[in-house]
Amino acid sequence: MDIQELRTRNPDHWMRSTAIRALALDAVAEANSGHTGMPIGMADVATVLFSKHLKFDAKNPDWHDRDRFILSAGHGSMLIYALLYLCGDPEVTLEEVKNFRQWGAKTAGHPENFLLKAVETTTGPLGQGIANSVGFAMAEENLRGRFGKKLVDHHTYVIAGDGCLMEGVSQEAIGLAGRYELSNLIVFWDNNDITIDGKVSLSDRTDQVQRFKASGWHVQEIDGHDPEAIDAAIVAAKKAGKPSMIACKTHIALGHAAQDTSKGHGALTNAEQNVAAKENWGWTAGTFEIPAEIKTWWEEVGTRGAAEREAWEGRLAEASAGRQKEFARVMNGEAPKKLSAVVKGLKKQISEEQPKVATRKSSEMALAVINPIMPETMGGSADLTGSNNTLTGDMGVFDTDNRKGRYVYWGIREHGMSSAMNGMALHGGVRPYAGTFMAFTDYARPAMRLAALMKVPTVFVMTHDSIGLGEDGPTHQPVEHLAISRATPNTLVFRPADTVETAEAWEIALRQTGTPSVLSLTRQGLPTVRKEHKNANLVEKGAYVLAEAEGKRQAIIMATGSEVEIALAARDLLQAEGIGTRVVSMPCWELFEQQDESYRRRVLPPAGPVRVAVEASVQMGWDKWLCGERGSAKKSGFVGMEGFGASAPAGTLYEKFGITAEAVAEKVKSLL
Amino acid sequence: MDIQELRTRNPDHWMRSTAIRALALDAVAEANSGHTGMPIGMADVATVLFSKHLKFDAKNPDWHDRDRFILSAGHGSMLIYALLYLCGDPEVTLEEVKNFRQWGAKTAGHPENFLLKAVETTTGPLGQGIANSVGFAMAEENLRGRFGKKLVDHHTYVIAGDGCLMEGVSQEAIGLAGRYELSNLIVFWDNNDITIDGKVSLSDRTDQVQRFKASGWHVQEIDGHDPEAIDAAIVAAKKAGKPSMIACKTHIALGHAAQDTSKGHGALTNAEQNVAAKENWGWTAGTFEIPAEIKTWWEEVGTRGAAEREAWEGRLAEASAGRQKEFARVMNGEAPKKLSAVVKGLKKQISEEQPKVATRKSSEMALAVINPIMPETMGGSADLTGSNNTLTGDMGVFDTDNRKGRYVYWGIREHGMSSAMNGMALHGGVRPYAGTFMAFTDYARPAMRLAALMKVPTVFVMTHDSIGLGEDGPTHQPVEHLAISRATPNTLVFRPADTVETAEAWEIALRQTGTPSVLSLTRQGLPTVRKEHKNANLVEKGAYVLAEAEGKRQAIIMATGSEVEIALAARDLLQAEGIGTRVVSMPCWELFEQQDESYRRRVLPPAGPVRVAVEASVQMGWDKWLCGERGSAKKSGFVGMEGFGASAPAGTLYEKFGITAEAVAEKVKSLL
Repeated sequence: MDIQELRTRNPDHWMRSTAIRALALDAVAEANSGHTGMPIGMADVATVLFSKHLKFDAKNPDWHDRDRFILSAGHGSMLIYALLYLCGDPEVTLEEVKNFRQWGAKTAGHPENFLLKAVETTTGPLGQGIANSVGFAMAEENLRGRFGKKLVDHHTYVIAGDGCLMEGVSQEAIGLAGRYELSNLIVFWDNNDITIDGKVSLSDRTDQVQRFKASGWHVQEIDGHDPEAIDAAIVAAKKAGKPSMIACKTHIALGHAAQDTSKGHGALTNAEQNVAAKENWGWTAGTFEIPAEIKTWWEEVGTRGAAEREAWEGRLAEASAGRQKEFARVMNGEAPKKLSAVVKGLKKQISEEQPKVATRKSSEMALAVINPIMPETMGGSADLTGSNNTLTGDMGVFDTDNRKGRYVYWGIREHGMSSAMNGMALHGGVRPYAGTFMAFTDYARPAMRLAALMKVPTVFVMTHDSIGLGEDGPTHQPVEHLAISRATPNTLVFRPADTVETAEAWEIALRQTGTPSVLSLTRQGLPTVRKEHKNANLVEKGAYVLAEAEGKRQAIIMATGSEVEIALAARDLLQAEGIGTRVVSMPCWELFEQQDESYRRRVLPPAGPVRVAVEASVQMGWDKWLCGERGSAKKSGFVGMEGFGASAPAGTLYEKFGITAEAVAEKVKSLL
Repeated sequence: MDIQELRTRNPDHWMRSTAIRALALDAVAEANSGHTGMPIGMADVATVLFSKHLKFDAKNPDWHDRDRFILSAGHGSMLIYALLYLCGDPEVTLEEVKNFRQWGAKTAGHPENFLLKAVETTTGPLGQGIANSVGFAMAEENLRGRFGKKLVDHHTYVIAGDGCLMEGVSQEAIGLAGRYELSNLIVFWDNNDITIDGKVSLSDRTDQVQRFKASGWHVQEIDGHDPEAIDAAIVAAKKAGKPSMIACKTHIALGHAAQDTSKGHGALTNAEQNVAAKENWGWTAGTFEIPAEIKTWWEEVGTRGAAEREAWEGRLAEASAGRQKEFARVMNGEAPKKLSAVVKGLKKQISEEQPKVATRKSSEMALAVINPIMPETMGGSADLTGSNNTLTGDMGVFDTDNRKGRYVYWGIREHGMSSAMNGMALHGGVRPYAGTFMAFTDYARPAMRLAALMKVPTVFVMTHDSIGLGEDGPTHQPVEHLAISRATPNTLVFRPADTVETAEAWEIALRQTGTPSVLSLTRQGLPTVRKEHKNANLVEKGAYVLAEAEGKRQAIIMATGSEVEIALAARDLLQAEGIGTRVVSMPCWELFEQQDESYRRRVLPPAGPVRVAVEASVQMGWDKWLCGERGSAKKSGFVGMEGFGASAPAGTLYEKFGITAEAVAEKVKSLL
């Protein structure tokens, strides 16, 4: 690449974009860690996007109708920090840039949505950004359908690298965006031919242009260092009427000794080479120094959207009070006041009717009363709608001709679905939930972890949550997945025992603003165990005494979900022999942990009775409740799974794997 | 679809293929569970494949040079059971077919490789089969390169459905097969337009033909019910010189009332409709009955390959004794006798030199002595070769012009890589290992679980295994991933503390024949803690006393990996204050659990000293060792992570998160 030609062809643009390059070079060198080459390579695209197209107001990064900018290639985080600093984002000072990747800095190694308002989503695990962006674009379409173009009308721009496009989740995202014709979504592919191990061709020769076209995208191929071509491509992309991919041929670490090499991907810390690169760029300012003229230009870029924001605020102020209030409510993620009332109503009805239903069906019953009063919910399933019971009658289907539709047919794409749901939640204004089989938590894991890390309240509806799934066999029977979700920080894992607990769990999940929830639900029918109506949400306590011992309390049986029925039956057997037995339902460990010690001790007294836990899952994690807060491991036991399941009818499996009331009662007696 | 036309166009083929249809219909109806429509729709393809192309000998399903047949759309398991029964596979009797999906049957809900020899891989989680197949095809190429065409020369055939192609992992597989020009791989796409939720177009409109072509595949489109077209397409595919995809336009549940509907996907159990379907097909035999003429024809199909197998056995017998022995050794997955010796040699050298190195580097040192004596290893990395340290000098790179190469540049495809490694291990003859960052266990999870379920000894090299990774921040810092892998049944999770333990772990991992291993390795340098050479492999015990208390034993500190160094330093602090402290290194919990009780009690005596565990990870699982086998939770504590990490230099993070020798010593003292 002839840098001289770039410098002279459009010198103003060159120096402005090189401000990004210089900051990236300096910050990575200072941290002695990071990724220099990508910000250098994509500086031209970013400069054109931010200065001519991106609707934003640097001083108000949380303005609701801003365009969203997502750096899917999150390792190039200095690109975003440089842009924010240059544009005058108050959170990104020069000190922050200098503290890149240091303890306490907002300029973390990868962009973290919880550290900077202008960072729309946490990226780094490759492919997540592009998959999130599908959710951002869907949320925008849905809200535009609901609140109108005057209040909601923006684009989602993504920079994705070769790594993003090699990850399978990108295909799920590309397929979804194509299917739903998300014309508000524009992806720049940083086509620099380089990965960490070498040339892209070392591991991939996919024709990305044909691949995107195959899924119905509008595609353009441009020189990613030509500002006019970049501008023209964005103009065309906005008019395309389809999701648009702009393949930007770029040079990683442009103008540096490491240009076009895999070394250019990482931290460029060789002082001599860095000096030479700046010379090559014609950049004479000192380290971390931006010439005033350039900084001023960038700050004007940062205020470019201020008038648009003010106009938008004016339009919002003209809306009816009710509309303003509703818009604010959903954008802030506040559950409606009525939520409690409808859940209580359902609980009352259930405690009277005492139906025997699968908790996946209980979940549908809860959604049937919740969805009508929460128009912000967007439901869906990874092609298991009839099994996950996630669709209620009032939702309408999200489609090209019905953007107000609230149900998404995600297809067989658990990962893309979960990532897109995170994007929806991050966009705000909609509250996403969707289902798959619990065993396929595995496919959704990267997104489930990020929901927890990013503090977004995505709800994962995981049905068929044990060997109770039956004949489909061990591939479809989760045994370790409760432990997996419980091991993940900042995640509420609910395993309700009946319809009452399920409704309570939904209420809690939908009140969250910073924590995702996993609902672990059965395929098989369960009796109503909460037969006496209480207004209080008992699941909120995490665990509670469901049935007290009669006579002297000699044993406590702990259980969740489908095994609460077994615990109660075991209690009957034990009480018949005069062994006083308490049953504790533990639908949400994380909430129980949050209770004060006195409550926890009331539910699980530290000394005294034998403790047995029953759950059709591996034991990992239970030791904490069996002995962790108590003191006598010798007097505790576990009834559950030790390995993978098998293919047979559910009832047979419970018998064969020994998860029965008799086995639990025997275990208790063996410990007495 | 005009069934009459199909019946009359090629009546012999029709009745033979309809034998599959009838068995699928009867077995699913009998089980009242399963998926009828897919076997019905793909019966024609399967009949042509098995009768004219697939190299197999039904009585010898484990013949090494057979073609591999993979039903990626595993829910259509009755297709494979029907084929095996018809062809005379001794394991699949009519009784087995009648017991479809019942306890103890080999005819499980989804095909399980550990139940039937002829089932090459467990399928059901969609997309896995097609991703496994890439590994099968690579293993074949590599072994052909090594042992020659006379001993290794076969194809891998796959049936994939729309679900397989929507899962992101399929894109990773398609990209890999295209890149490596795996011309021995032929995929039939069951293009029936139907998913569980409805028409495919409900959630996807991708042009699959263009998509495969974009990754360099040979693609044909045929009528999947036309036997001549199927035959011609397979002939062309074999000659293509590229991986080949045959798009087979089919009708799900062909000829049944549920044809071409999503109902046709599931269990067709309506007796009247099933009778009508058989009438429609012209099938007059009774339930589970196959007319003798048809059964005889199929049994001849089953013996078609017998002569070929015998000829192959003859060629094998002609090979030199050494070659025969080596071929048998690698196909049986036996580690070479020298393995112990080279590991001992390295251990001795290390205990003398006592280097301070990261365990990812230790792993490379182990591989450097192991790979030369184990020509069956195939290594690789998901684009982190220099970080995972998985490449050694002698391996050569697997490529189109070097099939003997043993190192695979997998690209940024953790899921596809892991799935393909499972395929390699299932194929046999090669022993796959590959690396990524441990946090990206999340991406590889579906394949890691299946490795455990399928009992294959895939080795997952997971480096950068804690906050010790430093500046890349919380997205890249595993905190729950040790718990995730430990929660998974049949998985050995190794977290070695130094080079000696790492070498020992490798030796154990490479001796496995039915269990996958996870190696959790550091980015940061660690001192040698095993300073005294012992021939015995101590990691084999799972946990052992690394440093004994001096004076009265008042405390036991348990640790793994990078925290063993911290445990030893804490011991120094405590001993200096006269507090006798034992340090137990616990590199592999699963192996420790397998030791007899007396050994476990010797290492962790049930009564007496305070126990503190230190691991830069969440506590889940540790309670078992802290109190589970002991009896006094009040006298135990944990030093580790409570939430996600952060972006900063590694040393800073250990300080800030309080994982230090001082903190461990304080914890012990607070409990005394």
